[in-house]
Amino acid sequence: MSSTFGKIFSVTTWGESHGAGVGSVLDGCPAGLAISENDIQIELDRRRPGQNKLTTPRDEKDQVKILSGVFEGKTTGTPISFAVFNEDQRSHDYSEIQKWYRPGHADLCYDEKYGFRDYRGGGRSSARETIGRVAAGAVAKKLLRQVAGTEILAWVNSIGKVDCGPLNLNDLTLEQIEASPVRCPDPEASAKMEAEVLEARRNADSVGGTVCLLVKNPPKSLGEPVFDRMDALLAQAMLSIPASKGFEIGSGFAAARMHGSEHNDEIFFDGNVYRTRTNNAGGSLGGISNGEPIYCKIAFKPTATIAQRQNTAGRGGENGTLAARGRHDPCVAVRAPVIVESMAALVLADLLLQQKRNFLNSADQAFAD
Amino acid sequence: MSSTFGKIFSVTTWGESHGAGVGSVLDGCPAGLAISENDIQIELDRRRPGQNKLTTPRDEKDQVKILSGVFEGKTTGTPISFAVFNEDQRSHDYSEIQKWYRPGHADLCYDEKYGFRDYRGGGRSSARETIGRVAAGAVAKKLLRQVAGTEILAWVNSIGKVDCGPLNLNDLTLEQIEASPVRCPDPEASAKMEAEVLEARRNADSVGGTVCLLVKNPPKSLGEPVFDRMDALLAQAMLSIPASKGFEIGSGFAAARMHGSEHNDEIFFDGNVYRTRTNNAGGSLGGISNGEPIYCKIAFKPTATIAQRQNTAGRGGENGTLAARGRHDPCVAVRAPVIVESMAALVLADLLLQQKRNFLNSADQAFAD
Amino acid sequence: MSSTFGKIFSVTTWGESHGAGVGSVLDGCPAGLAISENDIQIELDRRRPGQNKLTTPRDEKDQVKILSGVFEGKTTGTPISFAVFNEDQRSHDYSEIQKWYRPGHADLCYDEKYGFRDYRGGGRSSARETIGRVAAGAVAKKLLRQVAGTEILAWVNSIGKVDCGPLNLNDLTLEQIEASPVRCPDPEASAKMEAEVLEARRNADSVGGTVCLLVKNPPKSLGEPVFDRMDALLAQAMLSIPASKGFEIGSGFAAARMHGSEHNDEIFFDGNVYRTRTNNAGGSLGGISNGEPIYCKIAFKPTATIAQRQNTAGRGGENGTLAARGRHDPCVAVRAPVIVESMAALVLADLLLQQKRNFLNSADQAFAD
Amino acid sequence: MSSTFGKIFSVTTWGESHGAGVGSVLDGCPAGLAISENDIQIELDRRRPGQNKLTTPRDEKDQVKILSGVFEGKTTGTPISFAVFNEDQRSHDYSEIQKWYRPGHADLCYDEKYGFRDYRGGGRSSARETIGRVAAGAVAKKLLRQVAGTEILAWVNSIGKVDCGPLNLNDLTLEQIEASPVRCPDPEASAKMEAEVLEARRNADSVGGTVCLLVKNPPKSLGEPVFDRMDALLAQAMLSIPASKGFEIGSGFAAARMHGSEHNDEIFFDGNVYRTRTNNAGGSLGGISNGEPIYCKIAFKPTATIAQRQNTAGRGGENGTLAARGRHDPCVAVRAPVIVESMAALVLADLLLQQKRNFLNSADQAFAD
Repeated sequence: MSSTFGKIFSVTTWGESHGAGVGSVLDGCPAGLAISENDIQIELDRRRPGQNKLTTPRDEKDQVKILSGVFEGKTTGTPISFAVFNEDQRSHDYSEIQKWYRPGHADLCYDEKYGFRDYRGGGRSSARETIGRVAAGAVAKKLLRQVAGTEILAWVNSIGKVDCGPLNLNDLTLEQIEASPVRCPDPEASAKMEAEVLEARRNADSVGGTVCLLVKNPPKSLGEPVFDRMDALLAQAMLSIPASKGFEIGSGFAAARMHGSEHNDEIFFDGNVYRTRTNNAGGSLGGISNGEPIYCKIAFKPTATIAQRQNTAGRGGENGTLAARGRHDPCVAVRAPVIVESMAALVLADLLLQQKRNFLNSADQAFAD
Repeated sequence: MSSTFGKIFSVTTWGESHGAGVGSVLDGCPAGLAISENDIQIELDRRRPGQNKLTTPRDEKDQVKILSGVFEGKTTGTPISFAVFNEDQRSHDYSEIQKWYRPGHADLCYDEKYGFRDYRGGGRSSARETIGRVAAGAVAKKLLRQVAGTEILAWVNSIGKVDCGPLNLNDLTLEQIEASPVRCPDPEASAKMEAEVLEARRNADSVGGTVCLLVKNPPKSLGEPVFDRMDALLAQAMLSIPASKGFEIGSGFAAARMHGSEHNDEIFFDGNVYRTRTNNAGGSLGGISNGEPIYCKIAFKPTATIAQRQNTAGRGGENGTLAARGRHDPCVAVRAPVIVESMAALVLADLLLQQKRNFLNSADQAFAD
Repeated sequence: MSSTFGKIFSVTTWGESHGAGVGSVLDGCPAGLAISENDIQIELDRRRPGQNKLTTPRDEKDQVKILSGVFEGKTTGTPISFAVFNEDQRSHDYSEIQKWYRPGHADLCYDEKYGFRDYRGGGRSSARETIGRVAAGAVAKKLLRQVAGTEILAWVNSIGKVDCGPLNLNDLTLEQIEASPVRCPDPEASAKMEAEVLEARRNADSVGGTVCLLVKNPPKSLGEPVFDRMDALLAQAMLSIPASKGFEIGSGFAAARMHGSEHNDEIFFDGNVYRTRTNNAGGSLGGISNGEPIYCKIAFKPTATIAQRQNTAGRGGENGTLAARGRHDPCVAVRAPVIVESMAALVLADLLLQQKRNFLNSADQAFAD
Repeated sequence: MSSTFGKIFSVTTWGESHGAGVGSVLDGCPAGLAISENDIQIELDRRRPGQNKLTTPRDEKDQVKILSGVFEGKTTGTPISFAVFNEDQRSHDYSEIQKWYRPGHADLCYDEKYGFRDYRGGGRSSARETIGRVAAGAVAKKLLRQVAGTEILAWVNSIGKVDCGPLNLNDLTLEQIEASPVRCPDPEASAKMEAEVLEARRNADSVGGTVCLLVKNPPKSLGEPVFDRMDALLAQAMLSIPASKGFEIGSGFAAARMHGSEHNDEIFFDGNVYRTRTNNAGGSLGGISNGEPIYCKIAFKPTATIAQRQNTAGRGGENGTLAARGRHDPCVAVRAPVIVESMAALVLADLLLQQKRNFLNSADQAFAD
């Protein structure tokens, strides 16, 4: 079940980088949601490679097919099966990568865990596995938008030493983010980040980065204490993305340097709902959404596979060197935002379906025939 | 099921801060493990309040009882039930905390999610809930030590602005950590941290901190791609601890500023096993343990409940102020290490029982009668 | 997790027949449900031993304690912990039962599965484990009654060769059932069954029986295709009760001898809702409740532990004989009805909380703030 | 998650009768198992329609594709994705079946549960959904055969009033079963059953039947008390098959008429292992396999969709009549054996991977690197 995520609204992904294809099965989606292959394709196009010179030249159309669960344009409440068939499987020579373990990569761990591995590309640990997540995430996003008017945005916050400048989160739009080749809505920082990525490529190297997540108008009361706290599930979701090394919500690590009197967000009643004047909580208290925007940051390490020669060991136990060929993004963060958005949407949609407004008077409505 | 954690080795916790008691049920522990109430008590004593002037004066003995699953000193393979009955339930006046929502606390979220709440103390969101985790974690630790010789340590790495100095992780011991009233093995930093905590208390305030986790000699090949990656489950586990705001593994957020050529850990074969010369990975590649020490950092916000007067809103929607009474730790990080260790042990024990050395020749042994 | 049942409304049981006690933790119950220890005790008193000469003389008061999850008489939405402490643990001599495996009993399987066992009584395989299920089931029953007006009844349908006569299910009441010492609402059959049980006891033997389950006014649309079909979960629930050997719903095995033209239940619209004129389906079509009464039958084998001498083998592999002492019901079916009702209630309550009336217009209401 | 079955070795099915296709994703299969599309096809060919005049004329090749999880002919430990694309989707006129609810069918329940349905054929409630189970079951069978030498057989035991005669279970082979057009290894009964089915078809009617399951040489110690008892999971698995109405194991309902002295299986030690002289238990005691053959019986109702005219109601609430067209098996039991075998294999393979021989000395081997 380790390829299945979510308790009610749950996705199961399948596929390897160089197999016949990749995809997922989304179970537990309410019936009656209008979904087309185009809704999915729009999101997949944001993560697919070959978009510009900053990403891998591997060119995949990543055309998605919906094989079940949608009838006359609407979800039926039965499992939705997504498939993307791999095109660009040029059979180049894998002998080196088969023999020598890539430093920083999962090759060795897969060999030791499973006894052998699909050595063509990253196999199951490849970022192509996330296609199935993005497809399901597109449905989750639509559900959240329709049921609660929720909007989910992610962007690149830093690459290497270059940080994004201050943003007005209220006005931030997807267009501003996608307008940047590195998906950073700050034009000045975007240009510097682009240079950082290109320099890494010139040096046959790679570079890390951070991605920020913002959920506007999230449903209230999401999160099931104690282990399915919203922030705990978001943390699991983000650390399940290849190359991620860290997660923080709201004030995050900065909170550890603060006093309670600075950190506590003042509560007030605006005549209609309870709000807070600041949002150090990042929209989560006690692991339950309080209705304020959800704000998180995720750290991505530099791509492990680089072209410059590195010391490493081989399958037979010999020590030697490897200069990895193959086509890889110099910075995974650039294509990460849509994956981050998708995982957040999957977490929130599942919690939404679990949130029973757990007291009986409204439960009555919920279960009324 | 949101109070249950783990797929095979799974713990279910129960209890509120001011109810009859707290506890947990541990299911899926292999039979034949020697366990006594004393093994559990030793760990609970590390988290219990009233230990010194840095923690809440609330004095609880937290005596654990094992109600099932152990026979003649050994686990039987059936559920192990732990109970700690609450003693110190002095019935002070809760009218204020019942009326006014504590800024930074889960009170409001519980009221909105469930329609009402147990307003005595933190109810289910209280840190007392973690007693059940620590009890089960003590068993997980013993299983890991016995099966794989694994040792798990956590300590306070920073409080407010004070950071722990460099440590020799190979030689670090539990004794060094517990010798410090703030659980920081660096004596100089420990003294400064102690001052930081006392100053916060004098100011009717609180202060945040970070905790580091180190797993020495972890089993190899733990972690089930893609969603049950070891680091993903550790992230969920840590973010499920009250007051945590961030998690990172290995190089963590620093990795986002590095190049691949710096970050990749060189692999070599030491004639016996594969090792890496550095450990930026923090013991995890592709979400699978590679046998190197597992190293993580967790951020804790300052305690939400403080004695100084804060603006907030009340149950009726009125805006006003609250100066919270009650006995609270000025810094939750000080008692967090044993909770962090316990959650890590629960994750690793569950993954250990899931790790089937997934290839058939050894599977054969595993399943042989 | 094999001691946990249910996905949203889930119970985890713990305890052995001769340990400190037995109990359960019920997670996922909506908040605001009025629950008292007396509500639970009423159900436990129906299953407790020592009620009359037809059951084991082992006399247990089985007093239940609620340790968490209820505040000011109402559920809070947090885990509800139930505990019943074992009283009557007279330390008689277990040497024989420790040495010789009881034919028809789980002793040998536990020894082979876990390497050793708690040989005092049945350990975890004892019917005392079901106390935790009945306690949680009492809450499930109350939830179903309050939310949907559902009533759940079970009674003894046969003992040995004696069958219950035809009943008018519409008028059947709990009082009629409990008025019979063998829980059979047909007075004539009841008297014969009583004789059957007493004769079995006189012969140092035991006898089997069947139990019928009736759910009046069940919620519609319960059951989640394909694996969580309502009838599939009821089957798992019933076969998880000690000594059960078979389950059927509606026409059950008789359906296998029928033609479609006889078996299909004619559908009609009564001006208000859809009904069927017959109920061969037993209230379930495609694994989804159709609103008609749910009707099932469960088979229980004769108690394995009998006083007459039987051939068997011992722990050391020696072959010999055993005449089991100890206090055992000659017919487990007599105390089974409340356990059957409880398991049915747990299944239906969980499916009720999963049933989201899975289309969006009503989903909107369900999730509206 | 209701389309996912199994905790470690878990299958997720997708697809409708008249959509683009059907299939499943099998997660948690150990690496290194040799699997080809032909291994799967052999099993699918046993369930596919159009095999002879006793089944639906709907002719589907049901060619399976393996899309992931197998590399160089062996499982890699990653999810195995199976797909069968629907061919024979002749667009006949669905207006009648769309308007009038079929008695005995799930049409009405799907409409009420989900608000609308895919009215072409049975949609998700169609037996075509079981293709994904049979594909995954083929892998489970191969795993069980290789690891434990287990063999799983199912056959038709009765159709209508005709029962299979006594069989010598030790010598029973798949060839004997498949040699019969109704899959009954008793040639005389087979001929009578065939007549029964043809008569039902002539009468525009259908007929029910029972299927027996036999597991030879099953692994010992499978089954996780208390809710994942082997027999409880087998019951869920069998009742999740469309049209099933009952399940019994070993002596089943007959046990309810027996005395303990008749029913208890005498245990003896054969010098090597513990055996029983009889097998009323059907291979399961306390929900744990004891190594004796597992023997179960499953009841299937007659096909709901029949051509003769029946009274029923329509979508608008009007009452009227329906004479269903379309191509349907007059007796579902004839094609059920391979589905029953597959579900049994899925249950046993999952329990095999969960069975950790739960005591530490052998656990040590199991987890040794």
